[in-house]
Amino acid sequence: METYTGIPDELRLAVLERIKPDEAERTKLLEIQNELAGEVRAGAEKLGVSGILVKMVGSAARGTWLSGTHDIDVFISFPEETSRMDLEVQGMAIAREVAKHAEYAEDRHAEHPYLNVVFKGFDVDLVPCFRVASACCIKSAVDRTPFHNDFVKARINGCEDDVLLLKQFMRGSGVYGSELRTQGFSGYLTELLIIHYGSFENAVLAACSWKPGEKIDVMQHGEIKHEEPLIMVDPTDPRRNVAAALSLDKFCMFIDSCREFLKGPEIRFFFPPLLLPLEDSEILERLESRKSTQLAIIFKTPDVVEDVLYPQLYKMEQSTAALLKEYDFSILKTGVWSGKDETVIMLELISGTLPRVKKHIGPPVWVRMHAEKFKEKYEGSENVFRGYIENGKYVFEILRKYPLAKGLLENQLMHCSVGKHVCHSVNESFEILENAEICRLKDSDFRIFLRKWV
Amino acid sequence: METYTGIPDELRLAVLERIKPDEAERTKLLEIQNELAGEVRAGAEKLGVSGILVKMVGSAARGTWLSGTHDIDVFISFPEETSRMDLEVQGMAIAREVAKHAEYAEDRHAEHPYLNVVFKGFDVDLVPCFRVASACCIKSAVDRTPFHNDFVKARINGCEDDVLLLKQFMRGSGVYGSELRTQGFSGYLTELLIIHYGSFENAVLAACSWKPGEKIDVMQHGEIKHEEPLIMVDPTDPRRNVAAALSLDKFCMFIDSCREFLKGPEIRFFFPPLLLPLEDSEILERLESRKSTQLAIIFKTPDVVEDVLYPQLYKMEQSTAALLKEYDFSILKTGVWSGKDETVIMLELISGTLPRVKKHIGPPVWVRMHAEKFKEKYEGSENVFRGYIENGKYVFEILRKYPLAKGLLENQLMHCSVGKHVCHSVNESFEILENAEICRLKDSDFRIFLRKWV
Repeated sequence: METYTGIPDELRLAVLERIKPDEAERTKLLEIQNELAGEVRAGAEKLGVSGILVKMVGSAARGTWLSGTHDIDVFISFPEETSRMDLEVQGMAIAREVAKHAEYAEDRHAEHPYLNVVFKGFDVDLVPCFRVASACCIKSAVDRTPFHNDFVKARINGCEDDVLLLKQFMRGSGVYGSELRTQGFSGYLTELLIIHYGSFENAVLAACSWKPGEKIDVMQHGEIKHEEPLIMVDPTDPRRNVAAALSLDKFCMFIDSCREFLKGPEIRFFFPPLLLPLEDSEILERLESRKSTQLAIIFKTPDVVEDVLYPQLYKMEQSTAALLKEYDFSILKTGVWSGKDETVIMLELISGTLPRVKKHIGPPVWVRMHAEKFKEKYEGSENVFRGYIENGKYVFEILRKYPLAKGLLENQLMHCSVGKHVCHSVNESFEILENAEICRLKDSDFRIFLRKWV
Repeated sequence: METYTGIPDELRLAVLERIKPDEAERTKLLEIQNELAGEVRAGAEKLGVSGILVKMVGSAARGTWLSGTHDIDVFISFPEETSRMDLEVQGMAIAREVAKHAEYAEDRHAEHPYLNVVFKGFDVDLVPCFRVASACCIKSAVDRTPFHNDFVKARINGCEDDVLLLKQFMRGSGVYGSELRTQGFSGYLTELLIIHYGSFENAVLAACSWKPGEKIDVMQHGEIKHEEPLIMVDPTDPRRNVAAALSLDKFCMFIDSCREFLKGPEIRFFFPPLLLPLEDSEILERLESRKSTQLAIIFKTPDVVEDVLYPQLYKMEQSTAALLKEYDFSILKTGVWSGKDETVIMLELISGTLPRVKKHIGPPVWVRMHAEKFKEKYEGSENVFRGYIENGKYVFEILRKYPLAKGLLENQLMHCSVGKHVCHSVNESFEILENAEICRLKDSDFRIFLRKWV
């Protein structure tokens, strides 16, 4: 094994220079936060709502935001005894008062409604929540956030830079973000890793030896067995795994990146080179050198948020692959790309064509009832080439229903299990491109996706 | 289930008319047997060998031969205490005396040497054997035959016609003959089935419900557990399975034929219609309608007896299929055909072409030592398209070494495990034909084989 010589200071500084907010950015953010808090209080007063508190949460409030991200989370905290109805009505009314001073506002919905506004160029979520006594007795998922905030703020002091480094490193590795599209590491999880391991360097070093089932329990209070690859027991809630959204592959990609980074710590791990869109000629060249079959199922991108869209796309990716396998096609890999207008399910096959003849193996000859029924069904019937006995079983060579993968998808895609919104879009219309036909798709982000695909 | 209405008498008679030797044939055979016995005795006398007995065995001696078969087995039986050397030297010397009156003679070798001669148009085996006290204490495999002869002759009386019917039925079904090429039912096994079940009809009816492991023990003296599909304990040797050579598929083909026959007893089961050789145009038509890939490996037929040749051919059939599977080709079926000059191993594949890209799945990322070694080996190396992580494992898309099945066979056939004589012939030269190229093979027997193949 190579000996580990540590991360050069120059590298650390070079990265921080690009991701750490400077004094001006900090001051500006603080100003905006104060302004927002004032607006919330004013709104509550104007509407005659008493007992609310304003709480700044998220990375902006903890000093762990990456320079240039303009996200602020403002929690409007109601007394615990407030009814759900009052919380929603009064909370949204206050948020709407604030939105009067914003450039843009949009109703959003998680477990509860909340308001997303653009305020002086910042992307602000105004979220009503209950002020519960502890994170174990929350009434809504968002109620947990203030506790996370308190826990991190109390312990992160002096390690903010390490959080930034780890976040940026994860970004560079493609594993940062716990939304359903990415299924990677959340900001809170990153902060807890730094709190647990003490530094960016230690965290990276430790991750090299992680195995699925790796468990970290900062407060030593975990109560439940979890099955996820990484278990980070929530310091504010002993039953919750902060890393529940992390997929096995993102877990492994992180381990892999950490090992590679320690072998040769370079800035490219934090800022990987930008990929260029693949040109038509490059597509054709790569297809020719692979000689596999590429299929792209294309349909209009459903107009829903990513956290609703991506689970449906992943489901469709699985179910189309299952359909192809059921009809004897061999899959090399599957993938999903979704742009503003069009969404693509990519499937790479050993071959998009199978022979017309298909070997259909029946029951053993000595299982008389079944065997005789099987033989009766196929012998001499149309679309049967011939029958014989092999390894004691009846075998019939029959005509394959779908010798072309494209034809199979065109005929059977509607019967694949996909989510509601995707189903609606696919039912409206879809198209299947094969091999060189993929050049029809000009979207440059799709072409970047293709560069990693082939 | 259909009700079984028995076999029409007309059918029974019609078949027997074609297969039962008439009086003239019987008389002729008896004459020849007597002549041969005389010649053996004369030979022994001439050579001064005393104590030998002449024994006519086989179907000719039991009255269960099919009309037109001209096989006679003459056993020259020596006292048990004779040395192996004396038996071979004196036995063959006597046989050679007989051969002086024959049209043709050829030395053959099973466990012992014996002489095959053509005598007045009959195919005669002159076989020296030991005269042991019981079949359990034989000194050579052939010593058993006289006991079989005695057992059958004593019990078959009046059932000879049923033996003939069953033999011919098995012939029609392609399951008659226990030599290594066919792996079917021997004549002795057929006789024992009739002795056990009492008639052709009963035997056929019983076989419909056979399952692998079916055991018949006429003498109720079986001593050993056998694993073959059919166990017919030898009435003359409790440790021996008479049906040991019967393969599972021939066992099942017989069951299948019996069921079909009882559903509609017709003469075609005994005398199936002759198949015509497939014409070039028919070959091309059938290949086009199947769209699979046909590969024919052709080499000179080794000059050895079938019992030596066929096991080697079957071995080659297995090992070439295994080679193709190892390199990701999917096999539909395999077959063997051997003619006087050329021998063919037939392979039908889903496709003879695979993409140039091959998915190579490595160890899980967290099995660090193995994973790192695997990654090191492939990453950035020549002939690798790209790597990624899937289901927690490293995956590399690499260049396939043999994208063509034909190319694989041409390169690697020499390393397949095949028997000695086949190996020798293949090493001298072989050729691989693909799809329509098979029309190059004009042998009409091969073309009949092809009619059953595609």
